[in-house]
Amino acid sequence: MIPPEVPADDRGLLLGDGLFETVLSVDGVLQAWDAHLGRMVRGCAVVGITPPDPIAARAAAERAIADAGLASGRAAVRLTLTAGVGRGLDRPAPASGRLIVQASPAPEPSSPVSLATVAIRRNETSPLARIKSLSYLDNVLARRQAREAGAEEALMLNTRGELACAAAANLFWVRDGNLHTPTLACGVLDGVVRSRLIEVARALGVETIEAAAPLQALGDVDGVFLTNSLIGVRAVGRLDGRTLPTSRLTDELSSRCS
Amino acid sequence: MIPPEVPADDRGLLLGDGLFETVLSVDGVLQAWDAHLGRMVRGCAVVGITPPDPIAARAAAERAIADAGLASGRAAVRLTLTAGVGRGLDRPAPASGRLIVQASPAPEPSSPVSLATVAIRRNETSPLARIKSLSYLDNVLARRQAREAGAEEALMLNTRGELACAAAANLFWVRDGNLHTPTLACGVLDGVVRSRLIEVARALGVETIEAAAPLQALGDVDGVFLTNSLIGVRAVGRLDGRTLPTSRLTDELSSRCS
Repeated sequence: MIPPEVPADDRGLLLGDGLFETVLSVDGVLQAWDAHLGRMVRGCAVVGITPPDPIAARAAAERAIADAGLASGRAAVRLTLTAGVGRGLDRPAPASGRLIVQASPAPEPSSPVSLATVAIRRNETSPLARIKSLSYLDNVLARRQAREAGAEEALMLNTRGELACAAAANLFWVRDGNLHTPTLACGVLDGVVRSRLIEVARALGVETIEAAAPLQALGDVDGVFLTNSLIGVRAVGRLDGRTLPTSRLTDELSSRCS
Repeated sequence: MIPPEVPADDRGLLLGDGLFETVLSVDGVLQAWDAHLGRMVRGCAVVGITPPDPIAARAAAERAIADAGLASGRAAVRLTLTAGVGRGLDRPAPASGRLIVQASPAPEPSSPVSLATVAIRRNETSPLARIKSLSYLDNVLARRQAREAGAEEALMLNTRGELACAAAANLFWVRDGNLHTPTLACGVLDGVVRSRLIEVARALGVETIEAAAPLQALGDVDGVFLTNSLIGVRAVGRLDGRTLPTSRLTDELSSRCS
């Protein structure tokens, strides 16, 4: 169930042909497991891979945590589902997936984060922009561009020049008491924390405006933050060298969603 | 040098973080080896991976051909260079590559091919559009869309709506005695056969116009063909259900470049 090695003819390795999820474990408890597995199953339908057995996947995740000695504290559980073996663009039929599960320590994130706008854009014409696929090198290069600009994380626009996301997180901003985030059609991942945060904010009486917005929308804000499963909610302190204000709403959502 | 398995924490598997080349071998002789290795080395500079040792890479390729019993006839030699081990978007420094070399039979292509224009677009804002990276799932899905439309190969536009390439080949068309192909800035791979064909055509007195062009440019042509290292030059017989003419120039270039 947890192979330490993968055959070199696996399509995940050869062509980035597969999906992944990164699930936070706290003291051995998998956080938002159903949401993560549900997203992987939806992704399987998009790319045409047989989804994993959910009971076996959960057992493998729990075993990976135990095997890594991470039953206490924070751990990142990585589920990697490849399209199995086979060379060339056309998959052999049926494309039975290969599931690999690994656990590693997940340090507490330090806040706030600095962002730099990068040249690589999210390709909103591709279904891959909305799922977590193994073809993730654009994100690696976006992060690299951000590091070269002296920042910790990348701010990515899509090919239409609209705000999209960070290299590995969803993007939110606060203005005039409202929350804003790019709509999924902008080419952003349907983030597990993104969805939950929208619900939590609504329960607090704060609506989230999901829409397309230009980079200039971040010019006059009360606060900007990122979300993903490992960092929860993380305030953005600087964008392209400019210091951003921190909103009380960010702190409140952070305490409820992290 | 030729591991049959790869550790599951390899960045090629986890994040599509790496490059590849597919080199044709005919009767044990690697075709255009220097061009392929040179492109991989240029790609390494783009993505920040240590390039492979060229002498060791060639020896591994020749050994892979022999080990697979493919010293006579046509073989496809796949070089896969990953960014080595390491989790997360930020690579461990230095990112020492892992080279995997495999050989498999390469059947003679049958001609002509049918194309269907697909919805997924080449992201010309990404450097990955111009190199052969392991993050290749967009191409897999483009091919899948083409198959679903009843064709054998995909015709991809870029995000500006300009002609780009096939899922796994460069695109040329013939009109009024001239050759046309999208310029690299349209988000197309700097193909080994593409470059050679432009030189061969020039020697025949035919200039190649490298420019951005809309899909409509294929509406009134004398012929359309694809190029890559395994198929050489392959005529396109149908595009979106429409029968295309075959130009004598395609046949002439095919006999000189395949």
